[in-house]
Amino acid sequence: MERESTWVSDQNVSLVTDLYQLTMLQAYWREGMDGEATFSLYSRRLPEHRNFMLACGLDDVLHYLETLHFSPDGLEYLAGLGSFSSDFLSWLGGFRFRGEVRAVPEGTPVFPQEPLLEVTASLPEAQVVETFIMNQVHFQTVAASKAVRVVEAAGGRTVVDFGLRRIHGVDAGLKGARAFYVGGVAATSNVLAGQVYGIPVSGTMAHSYIQAHPHEESAFRAFTALYPDSTLLVDTYDTLEGVRKVVRLHQELGDEFRVRGIRLDSGDLATLAREARAILDEGGLEKVKIFASGGLDELSVEQMVEAGAPVDGFGVGTRMSVSADAPSLDMAYKLISYDGEGRLKLSRGKGILPGRKQVFRQEGEGGVFRDVVARNGEEVPGRPLLRTVMREGRRLPEGQVPLEAIREYATREVAALPPRIRSLVPADPPFPVEISRELLAYQNAVAERFSSG
Amino acid sequence: MERESTWVSDQNVSLVTDLYQLTMLQAYWREGMDGEATFSLYSRRLPEHRNFMLACGLDDVLHYLETLHFSPDGLEYLAGLGSFSSDFLSWLGGFRFRGEVRAVPEGTPVFPQEPLLEVTASLPEAQVVETFIMNQVHFQTVAASKAVRVVEAAGGRTVVDFGLRRIHGVDAGLKGARAFYVGGVAATSNVLAGQVYGIPVSGTMAHSYIQAHPHEESAFRAFTALYPDSTLLVDTYDTLEGVRKVVRLHQELGDEFRVRGIRLDSGDLATLAREARAILDEGGLEKVKIFASGGLDELSVEQMVEAGAPVDGFGVGTRMSVSADAPSLDMAYKLISYDGEGRLKLSRGKGILPGRKQVFRQEGEGGVFRDVVARNGEEVPGRPLLRTVMREGRRLPEGQVPLEAIREYATREVAALPPRIRSLVPADPPFPVEISRELLAYQNAVAERFSSG
Repeated sequence: MERESTWVSDQNVSLVTDLYQLTMLQAYWREGMDGEATFSLYSRRLPEHRNFMLACGLDDVLHYLETLHFSPDGLEYLAGLGSFSSDFLSWLGGFRFRGEVRAVPEGTPVFPQEPLLEVTASLPEAQVVETFIMNQVHFQTVAASKAVRVVEAAGGRTVVDFGLRRIHGVDAGLKGARAFYVGGVAATSNVLAGQVYGIPVSGTMAHSYIQAHPHEESAFRAFTALYPDSTLLVDTYDTLEGVRKVVRLHQELGDEFRVRGIRLDSGDLATLAREARAILDEGGLEKVKIFASGGLDELSVEQMVEAGAPVDGFGVGTRMSVSADAPSLDMAYKLISYDGEGRLKLSRGKGILPGRKQVFRQEGEGGVFRDVVARNGEEVPGRPLLRTVMREGRRLPEGQVPLEAIREYATREVAALPPRIRSLVPADPPFPVEISRELLAYQNAVAERFSSG
Repeated sequence: MERESTWVSDQNVSLVTDLYQLTMLQAYWREGMDGEATFSLYSRRLPEHRNFMLACGLDDVLHYLETLHFSPDGLEYLAGLGSFSSDFLSWLGGFRFRGEVRAVPEGTPVFPQEPLLEVTASLPEAQVVETFIMNQVHFQTVAASKAVRVVEAAGGRTVVDFGLRRIHGVDAGLKGARAFYVGGVAATSNVLAGQVYGIPVSGTMAHSYIQAHPHEESAFRAFTALYPDSTLLVDTYDTLEGVRKVVRLHQELGDEFRVRGIRLDSGDLATLAREARAILDEGGLEKVKIFASGGLDELSVEQMVEAGAPVDGFGVGTRMSVSADAPSLDMAYKLISYDGEGRLKLSRGKGILPGRKQVFRQEGEGGVFRDVVARNGEEVPGRPLLRTVMREGRRLPEGQVPLEAIREYATREVAALPPRIRSLVPADPPFPVEISRELLAYQNAVAERFSSG
């Protein structure tokens, strides 16, 4: 049985879209509706318990927009659906994105109502890219926003991404590793992420390695013979007994002993870390670090840190990788202007701020204290966050930021937030985001024009 | 700035793995540990509120195992890490998977302690495939297990997957659409899933389409001129006013009117559905169906169905796509036998049932009533669930089931479960899964052998 490839690539990513994008595209084309449109991607509210998001995913969006095209194979599939005319499909074969993108840099803390990006292009171009843009920016922002919490909780201790096995698919595995790194994680277990992004890769050993050897000791001996400065997993049978075996290995090897750490992966990690620390110190292994993993998230990491557990690093997997407490954000890509006029919709609870916007971040000596969302072009005090990153379908230098620079920028921007916003505790009141009077007045004017529908 | 491809494909998927798989691989190779090993993939417990899982993801696992190889490009990256010797990397260049896989068919309801699959191969081969197998089976099982709940709640009404924009990445988008379909969803909005898997694709129209037109009426007229039998979105400005415009469109078009349905996407959907139904019926549009969407999950769908809301179909997106109530499963891939001997570990709360196993599903007149997990080869009443699907690295016919057959099988198997297990309410007691006495005795024997570590 021959099967279609189940991998997404530059060749077929144009079909990673909701069907209605393509039926609307044909309608716009047929109706000659190719006026300039702006769509805004923003979040309507924060998940419970969250104080901010960390924007991520722009790099993949810009690559997509630069390379978007419909392959003959894809057009043939669409033809078979029976909803698309051959003249439309022939036009679609030459379709390219030639619009403009303004966006906040990756790694920017963002709040509800603030655009992460705005796409301005002919209506068909700006519309049809919605699904992919949402898919990437939503997930990567979910991931970066979760990681930054874990990193904050760890208070300077190392955090390593162990999430690949339970993250949702391989694309999330790759982009998630990058987003976690933007959020401040030090390394990933994902080898491909290491190759593609140059992120440091890291890993220890699995229980199966211990189990496959006749004794825990022989496993430790064999592994350290090959990797002298490795981290040994000590909880396969009896955790403290495992730690004692590391001490005995030191006695055996003497100066050859270069084991860097032990890993605890089950049980009461804080208590075990204290007991393990005592055993190691007593055995003269003060330099051997303790690494904890197993079902961790920002709350359990914070608890251990606050309790003074002698843990030097954390391997955080599943609960970070799926963003267990907030696996989705209330993010939307909405038409805010068409043919020179602001647009909105009035659906209950889903109101839109019309027109192109800018976000001004206001900082004083104590750091950031307020954001103002204003109309684009308004003069408002503060640092404007949205920059033009693509023009006529080509990336500008502002849209080509190296990953290390993004990560450093994110660290600085997060550090500038008020401590109560950085904390894991929900901030009440939330971070102040004001809508400028000019923008509110514009919203009212547009609403009046459209309220008769 | 040239960038590496950020797509996963057959060429680089071998690096979609945790670094420790490769360091352990080199250690096994160096130590000559190439005895036969069996790993078992199973779930240790169910998420809260869940009564069963629906196994999914085997097809991608088997394709991966058949095609797994390390490309020159990947080997070069590994060489640069400094942990791998050139003789090992040269061996890795010729590495192929030549083992055996036994698995429950995709679409099988499974319970804790029951293997979804068992891989038997030389230790290096069986170990190194862990991360990818986990990544795919975990996510696809998460997705199928969520969808089956939504479909049960809909009680025969149509459910369409609208989740692509907020599902975690494009791989999850594609594999998720397939998993939702296995779980009983009728169609997906994801066009690529339609092309790759032949799943029916479906879609209506977006708010932006309405907004871009001068009036709601003109949007409805233009869209139905091109797509006469479409579903019109009525909640952009005032929902019931939108419904009345559909009635007026009918008066305008007369016999030409072929609109199939309306979509409600905001507000109190059950109440709006009743009011919309009344307006439509009064206007002679009894045949026009009502489709509801917007923040739905199995609980809100069940509520609407139980309240008798006149909704004919549901578009379910975010909360299904990220499996909001249970975005991860406690799934593990564990070494259960090496070199002819059962293996286990004793880590607290993470005990292992050693040795190869079989699951027997016992059925009576009222359907399935009990599963027994036994040693492979044991004679136990009931239908054995695990079958050999791959041998010597090649798929057997049992591992090549067409998607439609998988979906029908899943529907039958779910229908055979006791109603209290199919229900959305947590079953207490849970579905009975017994461990055979022979397996328990074997576990004790192995535990005694390893307890001294």
